[in-house]
Amino acid sequence: MALQPILIAGQWLPANAASTFHAQNPATGEKFSEEYPVSTWADCDAALSAAVEAAAVLRAAPPVQLAKFLTRYAERIEARKLELVEIANAETALAKAPRLADVELPRTTDQLRQAAAAVLDGAWALPTIDAKLNIRSVLAPIGPVLAIGPNNFPFAFNGVAGGDFAAAIAAGNPVIAKAHPCHPRTTQLMAEEALAAVTETGLPPATVQMIYRTSRDDGLRVVADKRLGAVGFTGSREAGMKLKAAADAVGKPVYLEMSSINPVLILPGALAERGEKIADEFGTSCLMACGQFCTSPGLVIVLAGVDADKFIVGVKAKLEGTAAATLLSSGVARSLATGVQTLITAGAELVTGGMPLAGNRFANTLLRVSGERFLASSEQLQTEVFGNASLIVTARDEREIQQVISRLEGNLTGSIYSDSTGADDVLYEKLAPSLRQRVGRLLNDKMPTGVAVTAAMNHGGPFPATGHPGFTAVGFPAAMRRFTMLQCYDNVRPHRLPPALRDRT
Amino acid sequence: MALQPILIAGQWLPANAASTFHAQNPATGEKFSEEYPVSTWADCDAALSAAVEAAAVLRAAPPVQLAKFLTRYAERIEARKLELVEIANAETALAKAPRLADVELPRTTDQLRQAAAAVLDGAWALPTIDAKLNIRSVLAPIGPVLAIGPNNFPFAFNGVAGGDFAAAIAAGNPVIAKAHPCHPRTTQLMAEEALAAVTETGLPPATVQMIYRTSRDDGLRVVADKRLGAVGFTGSREAGMKLKAAADAVGKPVYLEMSSINPVLILPGALAERGEKIADEFGTSCLMACGQFCTSPGLVIVLAGVDADKFIVGVKAKLEGTAAATLLSSGVARSLATGVQTLITAGAELVTGGMPLAGNRFANTLLRVSGERFLASSEQLQTEVFGNASLIVTARDEREIQQVISRLEGNLTGSIYSDSTGADDVLYEKLAPSLRQRVGRLLNDKMPTGVAVTAAMNHGGPFPATGHPGFTAVGFPAAMRRFTMLQCYDNVRPHRLPPALRDRT
Repeated sequence: MALQPILIAGQWLPANAASTFHAQNPATGEKFSEEYPVSTWADCDAALSAAVEAAAVLRAAPPVQLAKFLTRYAERIEARKLELVEIANAETALAKAPRLADVELPRTTDQLRQAAAAVLDGAWALPTIDAKLNIRSVLAPIGPVLAIGPNNFPFAFNGVAGGDFAAAIAAGNPVIAKAHPCHPRTTQLMAEEALAAVTETGLPPATVQMIYRTSRDDGLRVVADKRLGAVGFTGSREAGMKLKAAADAVGKPVYLEMSSINPVLILPGALAERGEKIADEFGTSCLMACGQFCTSPGLVIVLAGVDADKFIVGVKAKLEGTAAATLLSSGVARSLATGVQTLITAGAELVTGGMPLAGNRFANTLLRVSGERFLASSEQLQTEVFGNASLIVTARDEREIQQVISRLEGNLTGSIYSDSTGADDVLYEKLAPSLRQRVGRLLNDKMPTGVAVTAAMNHGGPFPATGHPGFTAVGFPAAMRRFTMLQCYDNVRPHRLPPALRDRT
Repeated sequence: MALQPILIAGQWLPANAASTFHAQNPATGEKFSEEYPVSTWADCDAALSAAVEAAAVLRAAPPVQLAKFLTRYAERIEARKLELVEIANAETALAKAPRLADVELPRTTDQLRQAAAAVLDGAWALPTIDAKLNIRSVLAPIGPVLAIGPNNFPFAFNGVAGGDFAAAIAAGNPVIAKAHPCHPRTTQLMAEEALAAVTETGLPPATVQMIYRTSRDDGLRVVADKRLGAVGFTGSREAGMKLKAAADAVGKPVYLEMSSINPVLILPGALAERGEKIADEFGTSCLMACGQFCTSPGLVIVLAGVDADKFIVGVKAKLEGTAAATLLSSGVARSLATGVQTLITAGAELVTGGMPLAGNRFANTLLRVSGERFLASSEQLQTEVFGNASLIVTARDEREIQQVISRLEGNLTGSIYSDSTGADDVLYEKLAPSLRQRVGRLLNDKMPTGVAVTAAMNHGGPFPATGHPGFTAVGFPAAMRRFTMLQCYDNVRPHRLPPALRDRT
């Protein structure tokens, strides 16, 4: 089979390939027949140059045209749903239902439509007019955006269709998408639909471009290139930190969603009142998508004692009573095993699981550690273990809970369960402020795994969960503001002002 | 005279001094008698710990209390105006009028009052409520802010009274101010008034703290410290980049206003129509505060020819006909001489000035260079020369103007002069979009030196003018958003929500 083409400047072109790769069916271990290119710098360079031209046109594009594109793209994705779900399932082993067909794909098209609505509304750009001084400002497109999607959401966070994509386009920027090498064919199909929607709605051809892979050096070179406006990335902390260093060195805005263990604090009253129910909720949340969510609850903090022991027994039973699902790739399986070993080396004790299973699977895993041990190795014990493994910290007393919280790194979420009669309220007041500053989203009586696409969502948080605590990767219009720069007009003649900044007549 | 104390946790305390320094009167060269400490890490550590405690209280402080503090502080500065102006004049050689007494001090108190109004209004925090899903989000205080002020605005950008200070406090954060060593006594007096206002309004004592200097290493250590929420800095690119690297490595938000040469593009029609008038405007703008503004016009781009030559003659006459003012410090005088030499080495030709004068002064300086030469050494020829020196680029044709613009680094401002009959309009349309993306504030027919404090202002711009093009250092409420994090509440019980996120009853 011929080498798969890349999408540059509106055309499916043969890549300047340095090497090639195949994706693999994680459930069967079989390689797919399609061969994909690892692009050289020439491809990156071509994409960047084409993107700059597209950016100039998009900056002046009427909102209605951008909205139309986003809507048409959503419709086209829906029209090709069966094929997309089939292929994404084969490439990721994620279930068709409940998940790819009935949750993730609708979420993806909903995001595109919400982005379209935000563009039409226009308030997202915070236009501000001082008519007296004749000074006006507005958030404006920042330029070409490199969108790098993760392995765990082939649709909703895909560089060519997901949240970063929708936000960047809605803000008026062209996107250069980097496919995740675990699901290149899914990405290719979506890129086909994106290009068709671009053509239908008359946007510049290079509005959406897509490459599969580059060398690490070329990737960092793209990030640092003057032609690029910003970077949106979802993935591992290791890769994210390399991109961040490259971007920071040249003052390039880079938005990273990197790693999070999403602490869940269960206060004593709640544990006594409904420990069994919470154990069930926690187990369900842990195993959702086989733990391969950025918001998977990787750390639970409870007060040591009889209720905690019962809770652990309950979770153990739940994990042992559920079949381990197939992981996204052999790479995930490997790093999961390594991560669990890191926790054990740092002092955690295995409650259940801990070993690889046939077919890219890993036994549902639970670990526990005392508060004292956690405090002694708090950095290693906060290693993100991506997959179906979680750690329970049993703290000796309230003071130790407080100390554990004070050691937490930045996270996307933090949950607190408290009892229904108010018995936990004093402790809540003592602990919540400290947890609040360490997380982007604070939950009550709820596991963190659902990320609703709403204007009020924050899918973000303090470093190292992301690179900047002021921005969210999910939720319109806030997510769009990442891909903008503030542009002020001082004494600029009326006919030269952008429409949103003109005097209303 | 005893070593001057530092302000830690509400008290004027003796510093743990590694060494000491004296400030100098730039006009007379005399050292002031007061001796100031260069603090060791112990002082920084004490300030950070006290700030964390203050931050916890401030987060819950009612807006009316923060507003009261800002207003009382403004009033107290006004009450001590005569003394403040006297001392700032002695420490900086900036004129009492027009400048310190009638422009900068009123601007400073106006900023504090605008910040107070923004706090009371509350809309700055962008509260967003999804009542159906019970998800809510708001921008919340980020934690202790290190505010580092520059040499050129002893009041309005002072770490303990200026724009960053007002924005950080208004957003609910305590401030650790680092005085600029050129005006420590001015800073000390302001800190005295700040502390008095803190006490009067019942804010936590460590809401405002102040140290004079630290070693470079300790400064970077403060920036990287987990207790610090964010950094606001105005100053040189060299110092800014070091702070940025330290902050970036640990994912700490850092807002830098570093360097800008503020290109002014004079289109041929405007030059023909009113070259003489623009030459006068330009000369005035260049020499304002002896060129020591972040928005001083350091680069002018014109089309080569008779009109350009006339323009240059006009500017030359203006510069030669105006006495050179005293610079802020001997350091500024030295780096100005070095900067001019850098431009000359890179191919610029001296039109007038170029040499140091007695009493910390430097001859008003104009340089010129052809477009071709500029393009050959565009990086060196964009060296910011802080002080009374500017460079005129004479481009051969429109294409060369376009090339020059395409080489410009990020700047705070960019001005375009065009003629009044529309003769320049076609060229404007061709050039403006490229300049637009390279500057934070685009001006028409106006020099960049005035920075109005209005909600519509952007005193920011692409790197290296700042570290992030999405934020402004001037203008409320936008400037406040720098010192915040996005905090989402998901299913949080109603009585635990911050007031702005509760259901309206």
